[in-house]
Amino acid sequence: MSTFTIAEAKALVDPTIDPTSTPGFKASKENIERQVAEIEPELRELQEKLYANFRSGNNPGNILIVLQGMDTSGKGGVVKHTLDPLDPQGVHITGFGKPTKEELSHDFLWRIRKALPGPGKVGIFDRSHYEDVIVHRVHELSSPEEIERRYDAINEFEKELVDGGTTIIKVFLHISKEFQKENLTERLEDPTKYWKYNPGDVDERGHWDAYQEAYRIAFEKTSTDVAPWYIVPSDNKPYARMVVKFLLLDALRSKNLEWPAADFDVEVEKARVAAS
Amino acid sequence: MSTFTIAEAKALVDPTIDPTSTPGFKASKENIERQVAEIEPELRELQEKLYANFRSGNNPGNILIVLQGMDTSGKGGVVKHTLDPLDPQGVHITGFGKPTKEELSHDFLWRIRKALPGPGKVGIFDRSHYEDVIVHRVHELSSPEEIERRYDAINEFEKELVDGGTTIIKVFLHISKEFQKENLTERLEDPTKYWKYNPGDVDERGHWDAYQEAYRIAFEKTSTDVAPWYIVPSDNKPYARMVVKFLLLDALRSKNLEWPAADFDVEVEKARVAAS
Repeated sequence: MSTFTIAEAKALVDPTIDPTSTPGFKASKENIERQVAEIEPELRELQEKLYANFRSGNNPGNILIVLQGMDTSGKGGVVKHTLDPLDPQGVHITGFGKPTKEELSHDFLWRIRKALPGPGKVGIFDRSHYEDVIVHRVHELSSPEEIERRYDAINEFEKELVDGGTTIIKVFLHISKEFQKENLTERLEDPTKYWKYNPGDVDERGHWDAYQEAYRIAFEKTSTDVAPWYIVPSDNKPYARMVVKFLLLDALRSKNLEWPAADFDVEVEKARVAAS
Repeated sequence: MSTFTIAEAKALVDPTIDPTSTPGFKASKENIERQVAEIEPELRELQEKLYANFRSGNNPGNILIVLQGMDTSGKGGVVKHTLDPLDPQGVHITGFGKPTKEELSHDFLWRIRKALPGPGKVGIFDRSHYEDVIVHRVHELSSPEEIERRYDAINEFEKELVDGGTTIIKVFLHISKEFQKENLTERLEDPTKYWKYNPGDVDERGHWDAYQEAYRIAFEKTSTDVAPWYIVPSDNKPYARMVVKFLLLDALRSKNLEWPAADFDVEVEKARVAAS
């Protein structure tokens, strides 16, 4: 019987890691299901505590999960599975597509700031401000100087968030080029998946090495003490989903939350309800 | 073995219905779980079709579930359980609290319009524009003339939404006064639930009959052909959650959605992926 731990999840910081591996774990379907079932009740309770503290006027901060990965790396699945045990009231998901004309007329962090989760929430970004350095580097949409400026701006921005009470979990869903090919092929073999296929994905795939390089540089520049990157091997999707749940569990535990005390006299209220 | 059907869900339109009853169904835990397990795969697939059609540039419209109910009627649980089988990418939840100063400076529908789900989405309102007639009537926050105007404004507003492709599902989670007392008492007996208790809820409870009357009038005025009210007995929470899933299933089925066709040449793309 193999067990997975938060320490093993947090050790996943090496960009040269094999995307087909499942470090720290014999990743059978049964093992993963068992591990996930073990932590889900605690995830649910801690998220409820986080939200409860906000609702009670305390300031518990919040959590922001930033998901990046190549096309077909399973970001949508991670969103779905991470949220499964949580109360939707306390969750805030934002997917970032190609910037609109209005968004482009502002600094790249403008639309990101607008989408930040409120206090007491678990926010998830499906793609993020990292597109604005990764894609811009690969396609030379910005000058090298502007991209350098953006790394710094991102680090300052994330530090500001952390100082304000946000725990940031940055996850790169790391897949192999071969696995992406399998995924794209699968979409073309199943008419219920045509809508997920975009011919442009094959063009982007042609820049595979440039993307990997752009990610490596971004990790170097923006893995900070306050907001490190986790590089999660993701050819095994259930494994990757499990890892993200462990990282969320760690973030929630680190808040050391208590249930909010009553701000009313419990006995008085019991009597009022009984008489009502 | 008891089975529940969409027809039975849609028959729940009588405001005098017994909130402790479970019409159309022997509502044992096992029966409910079986019925829900039976329809969840279809719910998931139809919602994905809805979202897929939007993503593919078709115009599938969207769905808006409006949840109303007295305090402790289980709105949060319905939100959680309705969303469980769905892909969070295609869902849009909004909870409406006491209006802010800015919101009050606008027409009551202003904040509602801003929260409408986008195309291809399933939106859920946890409380809604109906607070602006219900609470306003009970507490005389608006003149009778203004409240009359609002019923008309709501009907026009909802017709406009339906004409624009929205299917509206209006649900009143109908609980008994006794059940609310049990729920409030429970919150006071469990320190992990203190945060859900608000002394003001007992004050509101004092207006129980006025609220029931306000709801009855609102149903009369705003149950229209295009956007009828469903009055769901909700003392049995799992039953109420099941009913809402059946209503959503009906709305999704009525759209007669197909998987979007490929807007690319599948064989050409297969060859491109294979060569990549």
